[in-house]
Amino acid sequence: MIKVGIVGGTGYTGVELLRLLALHPEVRLHAITSRADAGTPVSQMFPSLRGLVDLQFVHPDEAHLETCDLVFFATPNGIAMQQTKALLDQGVKVIDLAADFRIRDIGLWEKWYGMTHACPELVEEAVYGLPEINRDRIRSARLVANPGCYPTAVQLGFIPLLEAGVIEETGLIADAKSGVSGAGRKAEIPTLFAEASDNFKAYGVAGHRHLPEIRQGLSGIVGREVGLTFVPHLTPLIRGIHATLYGRLTRDVDLQALFEKRYENETFVDVMPPGSHPETRTVRGSNRCRIALHRPQGGDTVVVLSVIDNLVKGAAGQAVQNMNIMFGFAEDAALNIVPLLP
Amino acid sequence: MIKVGIVGGTGYTGVELLRLLALHPEVRLHAITSRADAGTPVSQMFPSLRGLVDLQFVHPDEAHLETCDLVFFATPNGIAMQQTKALLDQGVKVIDLAADFRIRDIGLWEKWYGMTHACPELVEEAVYGLPEINRDRIRSARLVANPGCYPTAVQLGFIPLLEAGVIEETGLIADAKSGVSGAGRKAEIPTLFAEASDNFKAYGVAGHRHLPEIRQGLSGIVGREVGLTFVPHLTPLIRGIHATLYGRLTRDVDLQALFEKRYENETFVDVMPPGSHPETRTVRGSNRCRIALHRPQGGDTVVVLSVIDNLVKGAAGQAVQNMNIMFGFAEDAALNIVPLLP
Amino acid sequence: MIKVGIVGGTGYTGVELLRLLALHPEVRLHAITSRADAGTPVSQMFPSLRGLVDLQFVHPDEAHLETCDLVFFATPNGIAMQQTKALLDQGVKVIDLAADFRIRDIGLWEKWYGMTHACPELVEEAVYGLPEINRDRIRSARLVANPGCYPTAVQLGFIPLLEAGVIEETGLIADAKSGVSGAGRKAEIPTLFAEASDNFKAYGVAGHRHLPEIRQGLSGIVGREVGLTFVPHLTPLIRGIHATLYGRLTRDVDLQALFEKRYENETFVDVMPPGSHPETRTVRGSNRCRIALHRPQGGDTVVVLSVIDNLVKGAAGQAVQNMNIMFGFAEDAALNIVPLLP
Amino acid sequence: MIKVGIVGGTGYTGVELLRLLALHPEVRLHAITSRADAGTPVSQMFPSLRGLVDLQFVHPDEAHLETCDLVFFATPNGIAMQQTKALLDQGVKVIDLAADFRIRDIGLWEKWYGMTHACPELVEEAVYGLPEINRDRIRSARLVANPGCYPTAVQLGFIPLLEAGVIEETGLIADAKSGVSGAGRKAEIPTLFAEASDNFKAYGVAGHRHLPEIRQGLSGIVGREVGLTFVPHLTPLIRGIHATLYGRLTRDVDLQALFEKRYENETFVDVMPPGSHPETRTVRGSNRCRIALHRPQGGDTVVVLSVIDNLVKGAAGQAVQNMNIMFGFAEDAALNIVPLLP
Repeated sequence: MIKVGIVGGTGYTGVELLRLLALHPEVRLHAITSRADAGTPVSQMFPSLRGLVDLQFVHPDEAHLETCDLVFFATPNGIAMQQTKALLDQGVKVIDLAADFRIRDIGLWEKWYGMTHACPELVEEAVYGLPEINRDRIRSARLVANPGCYPTAVQLGFIPLLEAGVIEETGLIADAKSGVSGAGRKAEIPTLFAEASDNFKAYGVAGHRHLPEIRQGLSGIVGREVGLTFVPHLTPLIRGIHATLYGRLTRDVDLQALFEKRYENETFVDVMPPGSHPETRTVRGSNRCRIALHRPQGGDTVVVLSVIDNLVKGAAGQAVQNMNIMFGFAEDAALNIVPLLP
Repeated sequence: MIKVGIVGGTGYTGVELLRLLALHPEVRLHAITSRADAGTPVSQMFPSLRGLVDLQFVHPDEAHLETCDLVFFATPNGIAMQQTKALLDQGVKVIDLAADFRIRDIGLWEKWYGMTHACPELVEEAVYGLPEINRDRIRSARLVANPGCYPTAVQLGFIPLLEAGVIEETGLIADAKSGVSGAGRKAEIPTLFAEASDNFKAYGVAGHRHLPEIRQGLSGIVGREVGLTFVPHLTPLIRGIHATLYGRLTRDVDLQALFEKRYENETFVDVMPPGSHPETRTVRGSNRCRIALHRPQGGDTVVVLSVIDNLVKGAAGQAVQNMNIMFGFAEDAALNIVPLLP
Repeated sequence: MIKVGIVGGTGYTGVELLRLLALHPEVRLHAITSRADAGTPVSQMFPSLRGLVDLQFVHPDEAHLETCDLVFFATPNGIAMQQTKALLDQGVKVIDLAADFRIRDIGLWEKWYGMTHACPELVEEAVYGLPEINRDRIRSARLVANPGCYPTAVQLGFIPLLEAGVIEETGLIADAKSGVSGAGRKAEIPTLFAEASDNFKAYGVAGHRHLPEIRQGLSGIVGREVGLTFVPHLTPLIRGIHATLYGRLTRDVDLQALFEKRYENETFVDVMPPGSHPETRTVRGSNRCRIALHRPQGGDTVVVLSVIDNLVKGAAGQAVQNMNIMFGFAEDAALNIVPLLP
Repeated sequence: MIKVGIVGGTGYTGVELLRLLALHPEVRLHAITSRADAGTPVSQMFPSLRGLVDLQFVHPDEAHLETCDLVFFATPNGIAMQQTKALLDQGVKVIDLAADFRIRDIGLWEKWYGMTHACPELVEEAVYGLPEINRDRIRSARLVANPGCYPTAVQLGFIPLLEAGVIEETGLIADAKSGVSGAGRKAEIPTLFAEASDNFKAYGVAGHRHLPEIRQGLSGIVGREVGLTFVPHLTPLIRGIHATLYGRLTRDVDLQALFEKRYENETFVDVMPPGSHPETRTVRGSNRCRIALHRPQGGDTVVVLSVIDNLVKGAAGQAVQNMNIMFGFAEDAALNIVPLLP
């Protein structure tokens, strides 16, 4: 049984952490902070948690997070980097669901996130929390940078191809579609129901913050800079990311066998049968990533279809998976959830 | 550990039973039948169950349901009444999620359902599976008639008022709104996405099959025929029923206290704080019914708001709750699920 | 050809006015104001208007609205009452789409809207712009108070019954459901896609601002205070209101004939055949109200189903209809639009 | 004033033709056929047309289509090819909204459509009805093959690039997303609301019938076979296609100027300002195609974003545009519609 705190619990990743941790057999929720909503019962803001979470939001200053074994940051970018050092110094482990520790090149991070990094030295220590790549390092980490939602879906789809060296490392295309919860629980006009419903659009084509994160991950695999075009789209789902990935094969290969082999021991990556089209709803509410492989008309273009729930495997679920690894719990503790279909 | 069979597993109540039973600690799924899809792996039709349910659909003749401890019928109306007797005779308990055993007046049933009843004698034995009314009788039942979705939401909202005798027994109004999954997994034009999305309509105003079921339930409470107008509507949700109930108070009463007292021991009925507006999403995927009470402008009209997930408390979840009661399991076994919000 | 100005054009009623007026044969758009977005081309904010509306938003001070023949206020409550007098004094006619001039009882208005009224004397002069009741007075009005969306749908459904005196005047129930655009184009969390999609809830049950407006309208018909319970709900549509109305018949009457007779000359009220269930999508984008009558099981409860597009007949369309009447244009000028189905 | 017939009017392209033709100043609707629904008033099936279309569906044998000036086929594939010859012989012009006359290579058509072609000789005569490419030939055509929805969005996006010879002719990628109405008004489980809502998936990755149509169009431009990967997806919209197109630039070029020049005289193609992200809702209900150009990070990959309403520019609207051209009407007659936003 560990003592867990959550900083910034009023967003979608916060309530999703609560959904998962409320039934975790090894976790006691100690505190969940919010400056604006201190004093409000969590279950008043999120009635789905009535009877399951009895905490009130507390002001960060009164949260005594230093008494926790682990603190999750479910905050906007730029918060965790200011508070993590003090927690680590007091022996508290940290998982940041925001982007503060994801990008190793500080200059690059500062350019894309438009602020000065508060603790570059911790970036070096932080482990990028994609268990399918970094499980061993996560196990002994004090600080985990939980991956972004798009980067999770895209990397899991490209990893086997790049590791095996069977596609060109330039000209990669990631055409990704996200549900609206990916924009967070923020009062903004473009994500109103009357704006985002019955509508489809691309956004950030000129450059999205997840681009350098994906590039860093993919480049790390091959040891060279990969060439990638990343186009995110907004689609009228609450949850779900569908990444459609394109690469050019450099030699003939049994794609199905390649992926099945690569992920055979991964609980949360499901390589579907040949010819499949994974649907986002088949992972709704679960930590699963489902992947299918296609090679249309037998040409040299490989098409990888990769779906996740952006709030679970793309955020809170992966964070819990990382916690489970860090503390030696069963990796699927509290994550053995059947997707909600229909 | 009991052995469970499901007849007719390709509809939404079927897959929902599978979602719940897959993780039930006391249940071993023995067989799930389908004439049309015999031989198809369940997880091929419902990829959400990949890795969780290894069964294939089997033809009813090859299912050996007589070896089960319990059989669920997740079939269209008129099927269970033909097969239940044989199962009961072999010592198998039965829960019918359709309407075959819900209406005690055979003539009335035959009028609304348009067929001759195959075993009226079992209707007499069957227990109406609304635990909040019939828990003791369910405990010893061989045959449970699982309530309809609208009847569950509407009855749970009216029961405390009628039991306490604080509203007129005529002029009751149940204005109910259902998500589209309530229409079942049937290929029909009116429930196509392009028809039902971004659209709202009433239907069956002249008479809906759930009307006699609700009337029977409410009349049973007061011992007299109640007067009820029931208007169902279709709203663009996948899951969820919202019943807005209207009654005329005959005397002053503390509505909040009345409901809280009535449901204080009910795990799955949540009486919300005064002034609340329960949202269907706060019960999404869970077996909870949430209720709030209003008395607008202090007048003599009471407004009860009652929400459930039509596939859970309105169907498969309530069926599992009934099973848990019949077999002496914890009533919330496999039902301790946090609603999926957002 | 008249010269028309719009104050507050960045909300949904503003862009809807533009949609309708852009093709109006008798209207020249002179100016559309916005303090926050002055200088922005209208078609940049609303690309649907590219090539159709060439205006930029202008600051109110530079709009020269006094040169217009007519000004629409598509502003939040409390704005029109401050600017209308000056415009009227300069011979400009005014249609207010907000609530400033709808309620004749100033004290009641101030209680529900939480502010002091700036020009009570104009409330007296203002004509309530429901053409089906007030066409003659609208014709000669200088100032029209355009009705609210709920009040339009509810009143059109109750009017024939109350005029004919065939229902009790107390115990009326209006159970109304609105699409999310009814909440306006405002950045607020409860109307985000991820909050309002796949969700259904009641709101404002204790009291909604449209209640006194509806009560005033219905009471005006019978010359006595009517007793009405009004429960609004939010449903995941972009556009559309469905009002389900309940009343108790005091004598036998041919409901169908009554409504057909009442609305036989009304272009925008469609009494559907007996047994119909009007769907909101059948009026999507159009100024039509469709109504159907039911008397379930032949009892004494009458159920009226009434649907409108909240942004058209419930707002901008009705405003254009009022303009057409005020200026002697064909009443359906620019309103002869086929609903968008599917 | 011409006399127009519609064969197969009960699908979405049929009702959309009716929506557009109902207000066309030069068209008199003579007959609309349906075998299954002969005798049913059109406005009973589509109440949106009440008061606007007074026809009943008639059996094809009683439709006297030979008296028409023009007949639209809004039928499944394989119908028009059986009836067109007789109509042409009687001097009736024909526009087929299905695929019967789109593919010039009969063998290829037969392979993809799984049937023997009934009149290959007419395929040769038929003009592919993409006005932006074939306006002059359409003007004098007797028989027009109206393009598919995906092919319209994809071709309009690639045409300027291929005509100018500024991208590689192989490795083209069209990642396209369609609303559910694209699947037609057919009772099928995968397009039910409860299946397709809150869900996103690719389909037909191995091969979709629109692939050969797009390839033929693009190859026709360059005079050589192009290399194209086409991946269609289903997204929870009623209407709308968003095509995200990728090509590799072979030389530096002013993309914005290239597209603006190419489409400067095209009423229905809107090249948006640099940096734009066209949204499907900005063309909802209209015949517009909106296009934006991107060159992420200044690399050699060009990204074209192209949106249409699949039922209008992707089907019925383009058919009416073709009719207007064939009969010398204003090209935008009945198509001057403001998109419905929100």
